[in-house]
Amino acid sequence: MTDPPYHVAILQVTPTATDADGYAAALVQMRELAERQPGYLGSLSARTDDGDELTIVFFTDEQALRAWHDEPRHRAAQQLARERWYERYQVHVARVERAYRFPDTDPASRTG
Amino acid sequence: MTDPPYHVAILQVTPTATDADGYAAALVQMRELAERQPGYLGSLSARTDDGDELTIVFFTDEQALRAWHDEPRHRAAQQLARERWYERYQVHVARVERAYRFPDTDPASRTG
Repeated sequence: MTDPPYHVAILQVTPTATDADGYAAALVQMRELAERQPGYLGSLSARTDDGDELTIVFFTDEQALRAWHDEPRHRAAQQLARERWYERYQVHVARVERAYRFPDTDPASRTG
Repeated sequence: MTDPPYHVAILQVTPTATDADGYAAALVQMRELAERQPGYLGSLSARTDDGDELTIVFFTDEQALRAWHDEPRHRAAQQLARERWYERYQVHVARVERAYRFPDTDPASRTG
């Protein structure tokens, strides 16, 4: 990861039980596509205790994050997600102002 | 949740295998303490595919988030965590600029 400032999108999804295979395939495609986007810094995927999916994606700046949001194949996947795969979701877009880590001498990022 | 702007801390932890019971108890205590902090808006806990713990906590503003960081019992727990419970961690502190959800007519927040 780079030093702040950079941008982050936090996406919390409650998935439906519909078309799980299609959803899984789309997630792989979107992850690969995101990694090739200009300004992509890294991402994290996690699952909450309630079974929601949490995706955190870091970009260099607001413009790069918005370009990823508007990427045509990503937009098509978002539309399908609302129709089939997402029962609900919530997104927070934020500007990272500070970042720190422990041990602070570690040169390798866990965020890849 | 409130409308932006508000603040968020994203904490990614790789836990040790040391004193798991003590760590679990501290997590419960810190969650209860956070919920009583001025400006607390909500939090999410999740686990990544790699087994890292992801905690996302929302506060009204930078000052409230910093006050939580500096709360004496929280500081003591952070110190213990570095000594016993955290193999490594990474924190991002960010200002949320935009937020949206689907369905956008839903009055209830999943972030509690």
